Amino acid sequence: MKLKDLAKNLGLDCQSEIEITGLNTLKDAKKNNLSFFENKKYLDELKHTKAAAVLVHEEFSSFVPKGVLALVDNEPYLKLAIASKFFAPKHIEDEGEEPQIGDKTKIMPNAYVGKNTKIGNNCILMSGVFIGDNVSIGDSCVMYPNSVIYRDCVLGNSCIIQAGAVIGSDGFGFAHTKEGKHIKIYQNGNVILENDIEIGANTTVDRAAFGSTLIKSGTKIDNLVQIGHNCVLDENVIITGQVGIAGSTTLGRNIVIGGQSGIAGHLKVAAFTTIAARSGLTKSVTKSGQTYAGFPARLRKEWLKTLAKISRL
Amino acid sequence: MKLKDLAKNLGLDCQSEIEITGLNTLKDAKKNNLSFFENKKYLDELKHTKAAAVLVHEEFSSFVPKGVLALVDNEPYLKLAIASKFFAPKHIEDEGEEPQIGDKTKIMPNAYVGKNTKIGNNCILMSGVFIGDNVSIGDSCVMYPNSVIYRDCVLGNSCIIQAGAVIGSDGFGFAHTKEGKHIKIYQNGNVILENDIEIGANTTVDRAAFGSTLIKSGTKIDNLVQIGHNCVLDENVIITGQVGIAGSTTLGRNIVIGGQSGIAGHLKVAAFTTIAARSGLTKSVTKSGQTYAGFPARLRKEWLKTLAKISRL
Amino acid sequence: MKLKDLAKNLGLDCQSEIEITGLNTLKDAKKNNLSFFENKKYLDELKHTKAAAVLVHEEFSSFVPKGVLALVDNEPYLKLAIASKFFAPKHIEDEGEEPQIGDKTKIMPNAYVGKNTKIGNNCILMSGVFIGDNVSIGDSCVMYPNSVIYRDCVLGNSCIIQAGAVIGSDGFGFAHTKEGKHIKIYQNGNVILENDIEIGANTTVDRAAFGSTLIKSGTKIDNLVQIGHNCVLDENVIITGQVGIAGSTTLGRNIVIGGQSGIAGHLKVAAFTTIAARSGLTKSVTKSGQTYAGFPARLRKEWLKTLAKISRL
Repeated sequence: MKLKDLAKNLGLDCQSEIEITGLNTLKDAKKNNLSFFENKKYLDELKHTKAAAVLVHEEFSSFVPKGVLALVDNEPYLKLAIASKFFAPKHIEDEGEEPQIGDKTKIMPNAYVGKNTKIGNNCILMSGVFIGDNVSIGDSCVMYPNSVIYRDCVLGNSCIIQAGAVIGSDGFGFAHTKEGKHIKIYQNGNVILENDIEIGANTTVDRAAFGSTLIKSGTKIDNLVQIGHNCVLDENVIITGQVGIAGSTTLGRNIVIGGQSGIAGHLKVAAFTTIAARSGLTKSVTKSGQTYAGFPARLRKEWLKTLAKISRL
Repeated sequence: MKLKDLAKNLGLDCQSEIEITGLNTLKDAKKNNLSFFENKKYLDELKHTKAAAVLVHEEFSSFVPKGVLALVDNEPYLKLAIASKFFAPKHIEDEGEEPQIGDKTKIMPNAYVGKNTKIGNNCILMSGVFIGDNVSIGDSCVMYPNSVIYRDCVLGNSCIIQAGAVIGSDGFGFAHTKEGKHIKIYQNGNVILENDIEIGANTTVDRAAFGSTLIKSGTKIDNLVQIGHNCVLDENVIITGQVGIAGSTTLGRNIVIGGQSGIAGHLKVAAFTTIAARSGLTKSVTKSGQTYAGFPARLRKEWLKTLAKISRL
Repeated sequence: MKLKDLAKNLGLDCQSEIEITGLNTLKDAKKNNLSFFENKKYLDELKHTKAAAVLVHEEFSSFVPKGVLALVDNEPYLKLAIASKFFAPKHIEDEGEEPQIGDKTKIMPNAYVGKNTKIGNNCILMSGVFIGDNVSIGDSCVMYPNSVIYRDCVLGNSCIIQAGAVIGSDGFGFAHTKEGKHIKIYQNGNVILENDIEIGANTTVDRAAFGSTLIKSGTKIDNLVQIGHNCVLDENVIITGQVGIAGSTTLGRNIVIGGQSGIAGHLKVAAFTTIAARSGLTKSVTKSGQTYAGFPARLRKEWLKTLAKISRL
C-alpha cells in the first residue's frame, strides 16, 4: 500500500509514493515500515529509527531523523490502530498449497491443518487440533487434543503442546478514542517456539503486534499461564501454573517463576532470577541469580524481614 | 408445571393451580415465576416481589407481599436447587429447525451449529467451534478455533471470540445439605454479548442462574479471565489477563481492570474506576473515576502510603 | 524391562534380572517397581520401601532396607527422569478394542473415543469431546464441548465436565541437569474422578507422575482451576474460580476454597477448613474447621488483626 493512500485512510496529508509493507516498532522498523511514537521511554529509538515514516505528536516531530517522514497527529497511537487493520492477514486463506506432512506424522480424525503449512516427521496431531495457515512445525512434536496454533506461527522440534493450549491468539492491544471506545490494534505478528518446549494445558501465548513473541529452546510452561504479546523468553525458563506475563517483557535464561505470580509489561529480568510463588514483579531486574518475592516484589530476604516486622506489630 | 406439582416434588404442601414457567430472583420474578428468599440483604426485594410464590424461611414469611404465595421451609435455598432441575433445558434438543446461516458466513470443517440457531452475515466459524441450540449471533463475528457458545446465548455484531473461549458455561451455584453435600442449582439463564466485544483465549463467561449474564457493547476481555454468573458489564470495560469477577457483580462503563485482579461477588463498581493489577476488590465503589489497588483494595494513593509506612518499619 | 537393562540405559551398573514394571514413590512402590530418594522429608519412607530398587545418593544408600537394591548415583532424580521415558505409554494405541458405549449414551459429531475405552449408560458426549484410550466412564456423565479426558483416566457416575476442561494432562515435573536443562519426568499415572463431581470450564486436572490424582465424590470445582499432579481431594470439597493447588497436596473433606487462592505442594489440609479468597496457603493445616486468609495464610481472625494494625500505622 502506498504511503499516500494509507495516510489518506488515516485522514492525514502525505504525498509519498513509498510502498508500505507493514507496521513495526521504532527499533525494528525497516525502510518499508510505518512506525509510531507514543511512549517517551522510547525517545532514543525515535531518533534512530529506520522506518519509512513515523506517526508522531507534533511536540516530538523534530526528533524524527532525516530521511524519515513524520506523520504528525494528535493521536498517533489511535492512527496506528486504524492503520493496523490494513495489514491484517486474512482469517483463513482462500487459496494456497495443501499442507506438507512429514514421514510417520500421525494426524487423528477431526484435526485441521491449514494452507501452506509444513509439519515435520514423527509428529502427532491428536483430535481437534487446529493448525492455521502458513505455519511451520518441526519434527517430533506432540499436539494434544484441541490445542490450537494460529496462522503464521513457527514451532521447532520436539515441542509438546498440552490439550487446549492456544499459541498465537491476538495480543491485547487497543487504542482509545476520546469518547472512550477501544480500537483494536490488529496483531499482525506471530509466535515462535524454538525446540524442546512444553506448553501446559489451556495455557495461552499471544502473537506479537509486530514481529514475534519468542520462546527459546528448553523453556517449560505449566497450565493456565498467560504469555503476553511480544514477550521474549530465553532458554530453559520454568514457568509454573497460572503465572501471567504482560506484554513486551523479556526474561533471561533459566529464570524460575512460582505459581500464580505476575510480571508487569515492558520489563527485563536477568538470567537465573527466581520469582517465588504469588509474587508480583513490577520493576526490571538487572542482577542475575537473585530471588524475589511478595507484591510489589522485592528481594526475598527483605520480604521475609518485612513479614517478620509486620507480625511483631 | 403447576405449582402444586412442583411443591409436591419439593416435599411441600401447596394446592395452587398456578402454572410455574421458571425460577427467578425476587426482583426480576414475573407472575408465573417461583422465587426464593435466603439473604437478608434482599429483604426489601422480598417485600415488593411480583413472583407467584416464594420459598422462604418461616421467620420471614410475614414479609411476603399479599397475592404472593409463601412456600415455607427451613432450607429455602436447598429447595430452590431441587426445583431448578425441573426447569433445566435439555443438553441437546432432539428436534428443532436447521440453523439459519447468513450470507458470506464461512463455516470451517468440524464446526458444529445447533438447532434453531441463527448466524448473521459475514461471520467466520473456524474449526472446532461449537454453537449450541437456540443461539443467535449477529453479523461479522469471528469465532476462533475450538471456542464454544452454549445453548440459548446471544451475540450481537462484530464480536471476536478467541480460541478456546467458553461463553455460557454453567455458573457455580450449589445449595448445601446438612450432611455436607452440594446440590446443583441448574443454571437456566444465558449470556448476552452485545456488539464489538472481544473475548480472549480460554476465557470463560458463565451463564446466569436466572436471566442473563450481560456484557455491553465495546467491552474487551483478555485471556484466561473468569466472569461469574449474572454479572453485568457496562460498555467499554477493559479487563486484562487472568482477572476473575465473582457472580452478580455489576461494573460501570469504561472501568479498567489490571491483570490478575479479583472482584468479589454482588458488588457494584462505579463507571471509570481503575483497578490496578493484582488487586482484590471486596467492597462496592460508588464514586466514579478513582483508582483502587492492593488487597483488600483501597484507594491507590492510600495503598501507596501504607506500602511506604510498611517499608519504614 | 529387566533391571539390568534399565540400569544400563541409565549408565549404572547392576546385574539384577528382576523385571521392572514401572516407577513409583517409596511409599507406594511394589516389588516390581523402581523408586527414588531425593527429598530428606521422605527418609522414613526410604527405610520402609518395598520397591525392587531405589535410585539414591551414596550419602543415603545405607538407609535402603535389606532386600531392596540401591542404585547409587549423584543425581538420582535426574536418573528417574531418564528412566520414566521407558515406561511412558504410547500417545495413541495402534491396536485395541473398539470402545464400548452404554445404552442411551449420545455421542455428537466430531467427538472422539479411544481404544479399549468404556462409557456407561445415559451419558452425553458433545461435539469436540476427546476421550483417550483405556478410559473408563460411568453412567449419566455429561461432557460439554471440547472437554478432554486423556488416556487411562477413570470417571465414576454423574460427573459433569464443562467445556474446555482438561482431565489428565501431564503433571509439571522435570529434573534438572548441571547445564540447566530440564528433563521431563514422564507422567505415567492417571486421574480418577469418583461420582457426582463437577469440573468447571477450562479447568485443568493433571495426571499423576505415578499412581493417581484422585478427586472423591461430591467435590465441585469451578472454572480455570489448576489441580496439580498427585493431589488427593476428599469428598465434597468446593473450589471456586482460578484457584491453583500445587502437586501432591491432600485436601480433607468439605474444604471450601475462595477464588484465586493458591495452595502450595506437598501439604495436608484438614477437613472443613475454609480458605478465604485470594489466600496463599504455605503450610499444612492439622486442626479442622478453621478459616485461613492472607498470604502467607494464617487464621483469618489473626489476618484481620494484622490488617487493622497496618491501617493504624
